[in-house]
Amino acid sequence: MKTDYRTVRLTGGFWKLKEDLNRDITIPAVYNRFDETGRIRAFRCDWKEGMPDMPHIFWDSDVVKWMEGAAYVLSRENIPELEEKVESLIDEIEKNQGEDGYFNIHFTVVKPEARFTNRDWHELYCAGHLMEAAVAYFEATGRDRFLKIAEKYATYIKAVFMDKTAGPTPTFSTPGHEEIELALYRLYRCTGNRDWLDLCAHFINTRGTDPSEGEGTAWANGKQVQSHIPVREQFSAVGHSVRAGYLYTAMADLAGETGDEALMTACRRLYEDLVYGKMYITGGLGSTCHGEAFTIPYDMPNDQAYTETCASIAMIYFAHRMNKIEHDAKYADTIEKELYNGMLSGLSLSGDAFFYENPLEIHLDNYKKQGGRYPITRRQKVFGCSCCPPNLNRVLSSLGQYFYAWEDGTVWVNQFGDSTFASDGMKVTQATEYPVNGEITITAEGTETLYVRIPDWCPSFTADRDYVMEKGYAKFAGDGVIHIVFTMLPTLMQSAVGVYKNLDKAALQYGPLIYCAEGIDHDGDVHSLYFNTDPKAADWQMEVCETCGLPVFTGNGARRIDHPNLSAHPAFSGYPRPIPQNALYYPLDLTYQPARLRMIPYHTFANREETNMIVYLGYGRFSFCEE
Amino acid sequence: MKTDYRTVRLTGGFWKLKEDLNRDITIPAVYNRFDETGRIRAFRCDWKEGMPDMPHIFWDSDVVKWMEGAAYVLSRENIPELEEKVESLIDEIEKNQGEDGYFNIHFTVVKPEARFTNRDWHELYCAGHLMEAAVAYFEATGRDRFLKIAEKYATYIKAVFMDKTAGPTPTFSTPGHEEIELALYRLYRCTGNRDWLDLCAHFINTRGTDPSEGEGTAWANGKQVQSHIPVREQFSAVGHSVRAGYLYTAMADLAGETGDEALMTACRRLYEDLVYGKMYITGGLGSTCHGEAFTIPYDMPNDQAYTETCASIAMIYFAHRMNKIEHDAKYADTIEKELYNGMLSGLSLSGDAFFYENPLEIHLDNYKKQGGRYPITRRQKVFGCSCCPPNLNRVLSSLGQYFYAWEDGTVWVNQFGDSTFASDGMKVTQATEYPVNGEITITAEGTETLYVRIPDWCPSFTADRDYVMEKGYAKFAGDGVIHIVFTMLPTLMQSAVGVYKNLDKAALQYGPLIYCAEGIDHDGDVHSLYFNTDPKAADWQMEVCETCGLPVFTGNGARRIDHPNLSAHPAFSGYPRPIPQNALYYPLDLTYQPARLRMIPYHTFANREETNMIVYLGYGRFSFCEE
Repeated sequence: MKTDYRTVRLTGGFWKLKEDLNRDITIPAVYNRFDETGRIRAFRCDWKEGMPDMPHIFWDSDVVKWMEGAAYVLSRENIPELEEKVESLIDEIEKNQGEDGYFNIHFTVVKPEARFTNRDWHELYCAGHLMEAAVAYFEATGRDRFLKIAEKYATYIKAVFMDKTAGPTPTFSTPGHEEIELALYRLYRCTGNRDWLDLCAHFINTRGTDPSEGEGTAWANGKQVQSHIPVREQFSAVGHSVRAGYLYTAMADLAGETGDEALMTACRRLYEDLVYGKMYITGGLGSTCHGEAFTIPYDMPNDQAYTETCASIAMIYFAHRMNKIEHDAKYADTIEKELYNGMLSGLSLSGDAFFYENPLEIHLDNYKKQGGRYPITRRQKVFGCSCCPPNLNRVLSSLGQYFYAWEDGTVWVNQFGDSTFASDGMKVTQATEYPVNGEITITAEGTETLYVRIPDWCPSFTADRDYVMEKGYAKFAGDGVIHIVFTMLPTLMQSAVGVYKNLDKAALQYGPLIYCAEGIDHDGDVHSLYFNTDPKAADWQMEVCETCGLPVFTGNGARRIDHPNLSAHPAFSGYPRPIPQNALYYPLDLTYQPARLRMIPYHTFANREETNMIVYLGYGRFSFCEE
Repeated sequence: MKTDYRTVRLTGGFWKLKEDLNRDITIPAVYNRFDETGRIRAFRCDWKEGMPDMPHIFWDSDVVKWMEGAAYVLSRENIPELEEKVESLIDEIEKNQGEDGYFNIHFTVVKPEARFTNRDWHELYCAGHLMEAAVAYFEATGRDRFLKIAEKYATYIKAVFMDKTAGPTPTFSTPGHEEIELALYRLYRCTGNRDWLDLCAHFINTRGTDPSEGEGTAWANGKQVQSHIPVREQFSAVGHSVRAGYLYTAMADLAGETGDEALMTACRRLYEDLVYGKMYITGGLGSTCHGEAFTIPYDMPNDQAYTETCASIAMIYFAHRMNKIEHDAKYADTIEKELYNGMLSGLSLSGDAFFYENPLEIHLDNYKKQGGRYPITRRQKVFGCSCCPPNLNRVLSSLGQYFYAWEDGTVWVNQFGDSTFASDGMKVTQATEYPVNGEITITAEGTETLYVRIPDWCPSFTADRDYVMEKGYAKFAGDGVIHIVFTMLPTLMQSAVGVYKNLDKAALQYGPLIYCAEGIDHDGDVHSLYFNTDPKAADWQMEVCETCGLPVFTGNGARRIDHPNLSAHPAFSGYPRPIPQNALYYPLDLTYQPARLRMIPYHTFANREETNMIVYLGYGRFSFCEE
């Protein structure tokens, strides 16, 4: 199946609001932060020792990723001010690109002697992002100045790394931070020049074959950067979660292009390893801050979750490629989970503040008491390592590609929201309030077959036209109007038993949305709250939140009453020896009070004030009136 | 108050069985293992390069600790074979003691040039254990040959470390592994020679004042060995748990002797820090294997618990000293908890196999799956680091001292079991089946006042004589016969809320005994079991185990039924898309089955075959008939 953000227009609803917020607030905000921190000025390449704002090794990537995001906006709308900013940056890149094609600010003005000497210094990663931005800008404007710069750079990289016809001789064979592989594939698809496909394949096929790349320490060791073994032997996701996601995306690109079954098998197994072993219910990936990495299957601590926003984005890319090859709705399920939860939690409702990490639990007292390393609890305007904000820019300005796919008279509806798809003489529109409710009206013109994804969370649905189920899609023949209704109920979700930290706990899900409770709505303390497993008693009430546009649920739960004064507790009052106030152990004396729960969409946490937060609550069947 | 193991005879019941087992099985077994491993032969001090069984730096301590245990046995009984073994070892020690008084096998035959050059090489620790053994043997036999050896060694150590009148100049000021401090205090109490009190005080007071001792790495860094700050400023238990316990014991000895209020304050605060923040419900101390050390308060993982047997023993010593000074039953509560649980779990029921670590949970599948470091799951006959077995020898052969204390016409009954105390014209006997039940008949002769500890776990009790409560003791005037009955019920115990790993879990306690469930009694799997919080429904039935002589409980609980086949699960059968078998997340569908629970005393776990084990179960109110 084919996808192209340019074939789709979002016309209303939740994602249209996010697309507009990105255009109006997030993209300008990220640019301004980059300007204030010297990242924009760095492109002049006139930094000298002693000046402030020494260009960092990955500043190039921050800015070109922003340019890519801006390009997608410009593909739909004429915004001269935005276009000027991009053009001005291209001016500087053009001016400062080496005769040989090389472009990297840090290794031009700070360490020119160190070009290609350290595998972990992100040069090829920055180059990859530059190529993606150039492709996007060409697609948006039809002007090829930036694309030519990118191809000139790609020519040089191919000469250095693959053909060995240009210097300097690099100290490594493949990038320490993957990204250029998928970028080269895009460059090939855009230009038709097979050189870029060859170089993409070269990097992917060489990975894990050079013994020296299996070693190294910390951030650049073999497992950390997925070069411990050849990629076709990689069935378990290891190491840095963002690098892994970008690599797997490129592997899927290449496998889809070449039909390489061994590579496709690795992609399938890696996908299953992630989705059935290492993915939080929010879509979060990479459970540990140590190396921002994967650990072992089922090891997903909620309060220590690292789960970088970029890892969710990389997973969207990977799943998107897989769906294009396999036409299986399960990949679009993953994309939906990431979009609504793991990815979107990286962005504030105001659109100008960000999370790099996305924990599933915040326990402020614990952080203070334990003193150890814990995730941040407030969204930031900018990070030293600022990969996530411009990554959000580019996803939120190219959302349409995830909504529809097409091929030979067939259209797949993968995501839901008011939108229009048009290509190859076919037109499909959706009218819906999804995910506030599950009612969708789809109007198709010129289609022979229409596939509509039935979400994996959906317990039942109705459609007013005949269909057959196929790979998770309801398949409808012909065109016309279809009314489809997904049953959407607030549902308590458990984890597989092996996820020990979630045993005897549940998370609330409604449609694709995972929910959390914040302290600010519960007198500060969310860690003593319990769900009521009796749906009647829980009596969930939905209201649509004015700020976020999504359902918020209030319902009946319980609060565990911890003994504030053990020695005065009635259950222990007869004891000959009073139980010490600070006793570690004492007889179980359960006291629960009714508690009103207010559950908000997970991705909207930390948008008010610093407060406790929790996704997984304990649960019980509480009937207060009876006792 | 005074205590002396020689004033007490155990006459029957649980601890008498353990005392006899120690004499008949454990002491011979430990000697034989030490003989087989070359530890006994090492005392000939004729090892040379190239020979097998190179004497290890702490082998001396293993053997002299065994000698101490043997000495306590010999104080009560004439066992020529045992006495000969001890005498023969003393022969070798006498023969190989240096002219200067020094005795250490490793630093005589392996590294003579390295004497006193490495703080972490346990020389003074070994010396301390030698002194304790010498005191015990003198007390048992009245013969002072060994005691003189110890005093000669102590004289030399004082000259080297305190008076600086003998060489070589050591590279450190205080021991890297505490022990000699409490040993010197015993030597002083036994001989009346104030030099040993002075040297004890010197080591304690110097600790944490030499800046160089605050540094070092890993096993010998300042916090790890409690020399990060002066001892009077230490209010939080840190570092290696056994070293800490020995130090705190000596601090209490010295504070009790001198009335040093600053030192006493530190002891009290350290005790509270341990008991109200860092002690497992089993009495286990030192939650991490990294440094065999304490971590932060409330951090007590059950499956990763390190909780060395020796740390529980050190805690017994510390609490015993504190009680002697403060006359507060809370210290005897701690001793009871340690004796029945944390300490005794170190010894197999057969008496000849040991645990060095005492986890509160064994999950065999997890160990295999996760591959990480986990506690051992089977008792061993001997360890490379074999401190625990002889430590058990000496505690189990000197138990009487924990049962009674006395002073000026007053006797305190601290522990319960058939026994006789006699000293200073007073005689107290107990007849009881404790801890099978709580009925105790105490007969006192010649006492003006009798204090009987009311255990901290006891919800109520009756006595047939008037009493007043005082510091956790029921205080009875005069002498005569007293019948006292503690209410003993199987009780679910919760942890303080901050112990997050135990939230929504409970442990079963009966009297002083903590219970566990083993896989072998529950079809292999204990991790899906739940307690029923309704005592009527739980209907605990007690039987006395023939093997261990203690109550075992069977009762009604529940087992969580995990979905063996998600896609065929009736609750999900209507789903348009089947839930994948390996799904990580799916709707909560609670299924519990009635399960018969069999709870055995914690310390008896791992005495059958390798199997799962758990102390903390989840709980709920299950009424299967109603649903």
